Amino acid sequence: MKNFTTMSMRYDGHKFEIIDQQMLPDKKIWVSIESPQDIIAAIKALKVRGAPLIGISASLSLALWSSKAGDLESFITALEQVRESRPTAVNLMNNLDLIKAEAVKSGFNTERIQALAFQLFQDDVDLCKKMGRAGAGLVDVGDGILTHCNTGGLATAGDGTALSVLLESHRQDKNIHVYVDETRPLLQGGRLTAWELLEAQVPHSIICDNMAGWFMQLGKVQKIFVGADRIAKNGDFANKIGTYSLAVLADFHKIPFYVVAPSTTLDSNCIDGKGIPVEMRKDSEVRGVKGHFGEIRWAPEGSPVLNPAFDVTPSQLVTGFVIDGEVHKSLSL
Amino acid sequence: MKNFTTMSMRYDGHKFEIIDQQMLPDKKIWVSIESPQDIIAAIKALKVRGAPLIGISASLSLALWSSKAGDLESFITALEQVRESRPTAVNLMNNLDLIKAEAVKSGFNTERIQALAFQLFQDDVDLCKKMGRAGAGLVDVGDGILTHCNTGGLATAGDGTALSVLLESHRQDKNIHVYVDETRPLLQGGRLTAWELLEAQVPHSIICDNMAGWFMQLGKVQKIFVGADRIAKNGDFANKIGTYSLAVLADFHKIPFYVVAPSTTLDSNCIDGKGIPVEMRKDSEVRGVKGHFGEIRWAPEGSPVLNPAFDVTPSQLVTGFVIDGEVHKSLSL
Repeated sequence: MKNFTTMSMRYDGHKFEIIDQQMLPDKKIWVSIESPQDIIAAIKALKVRGAPLIGISASLSLALWSSKAGDLESFITALEQVRESRPTAVNLMNNLDLIKAEAVKSGFNTERIQALAFQLFQDDVDLCKKMGRAGAGLVDVGDGILTHCNTGGLATAGDGTALSVLLESHRQDKNIHVYVDETRPLLQGGRLTAWELLEAQVPHSIICDNMAGWFMQLGKVQKIFVGADRIAKNGDFANKIGTYSLAVLADFHKIPFYVVAPSTTLDSNCIDGKGIPVEMRKDSEVRGVKGHFGEIRWAPEGSPVLNPAFDVTPSQLVTGFVIDGEVHKSLSL
Repeated sequence: MKNFTTMSMRYDGHKFEIIDQQMLPDKKIWVSIESPQDIIAAIKALKVRGAPLIGISASLSLALWSSKAGDLESFITALEQVRESRPTAVNLMNNLDLIKAEAVKSGFNTERIQALAFQLFQDDVDLCKKMGRAGAGLVDVGDGILTHCNTGGLATAGDGTALSVLLESHRQDKNIHVYVDETRPLLQGGRLTAWELLEAQVPHSIICDNMAGWFMQLGKVQKIFVGADRIAKNGDFANKIGTYSLAVLADFHKIPFYVVAPSTTLDSNCIDGKGIPVEMRKDSEVRGVKGHFGEIRWAPEGSPVLNPAFDVTPSQLVTGFVIDGEVHKSLSL
């Protein structure tokens, strides 16, 4: 398998390593993945996160281990154990189905298994590049760009979705400045996106979520780029809580608002936003914060809390959808 | 002096005590104030906060101590020391000017000094009641009401400004439910407003600031009530960062948006919002949180931060101003 280094994974011909995302942004610790048990432990401990990244890092680690597996039976047993580490992750299922089929079809040819895993990796990198280039075409020199949550190389094998647009615009010397919503309650913006922008030396400022409107009023924000978790047939889409408020604020200030996602995010079984269920998460996430940095609660234990993980933004508030390598003004699947 | 008990102060005829706001919401600790040094220490340690509350608690503690002061000279020396504990607090200056004048005019009659301090206290309680009653007239039975920051009995001698409206509506059995913005970065909503609502048994839910728009889309919010730090001649007003975003979201969802403040907040020297300077606060407040509950940083030390303390909302986005006991559709001073 060819060598590679991304924001969150690297392979030097001998060792396959992932970055421990639980320790970011304070410590950059690379964890060696030598066996199926290693990647299972990393997935369960959230050292690796983000649906595309989980699927691809699991595929790569199994493929590299295949030469030590002994026989097809042991390999498939291990693969099924890895699949069970996160039963709800669709990318993990899909990628491991492909790896399993190749293992069977090729008569357990480890070179062909590794070639497929690398192809899955390369496809994701290329897809992120396509989104980045298409999106960067919408960015003007000197733009202030606001983004929300984490949509970069810590969630994908490549540069990510919305963040790929920002990284590509920076590489094209568009002289952008990124406003990073901290993204309460889990702080993916302030903790992970800020770290990725710092690593890539993209000029940026972290702001609290409730400051976004004020910087729009001040004329500091020219574009907004966000990712999507699920896009309905009519273009309504679900994304991290706070996205909908940004879309409304953008509409009021006449700021273009773009959604960046791979075509796999489009759900043709879902007619519109009403068909997207919104998961409610734990109260403790809103009462305080918790991470490798410690755990703190500041709100009264007795106060009720509401903690929707996502919100749904109607397509009318979206200026354009960057899907794979193309920009669409509206969607009708 | 008559006995009294408020959310943040109490006097039983012998002891004057204030609640230690630094320890809220986890511990309800009453601190005895027996000397000018005690109130200076409490103000400096932020045990007592909120401009009106600082002014009135300082006046009460000095007035009660006047009988032990010995003579006018010692009393005025102590009063000047208290004044210096927070040189920028206008209410503190104004209240202590009145107390000092009364001490001189009355020939250091401690009964008259105490009567004046109690009058200042009673005037603030009455003013809060007036705002509460006028605002409650705007509330319908069953309303979901969103509020931001802390505007209650922890900042004033009475029930506060916007929070007074919510408490009065609850007392009138209007069956309201309050959505409490946690109010990053300093968390006055999640920490203090939630605690006050819990104490008063008003049904409520704490939400992160970026969830407000989603609950408006879901039809859960019928009214928004906020306080104000400064109101310009044309009705533009400054308030805690995040207020402006709420006003825009309210406009989009056609939700009435009300500002509640005493007439002392009106600044007739300020023509419009452009004349209100916005103070930038410390980066560390956005990189993490800090309080009696501990200190945590989750954002990269190297990432730049923006931390405006306030924002300015144009009067066009305000449905009504509740000023003292009256509701105004617009302001022109």
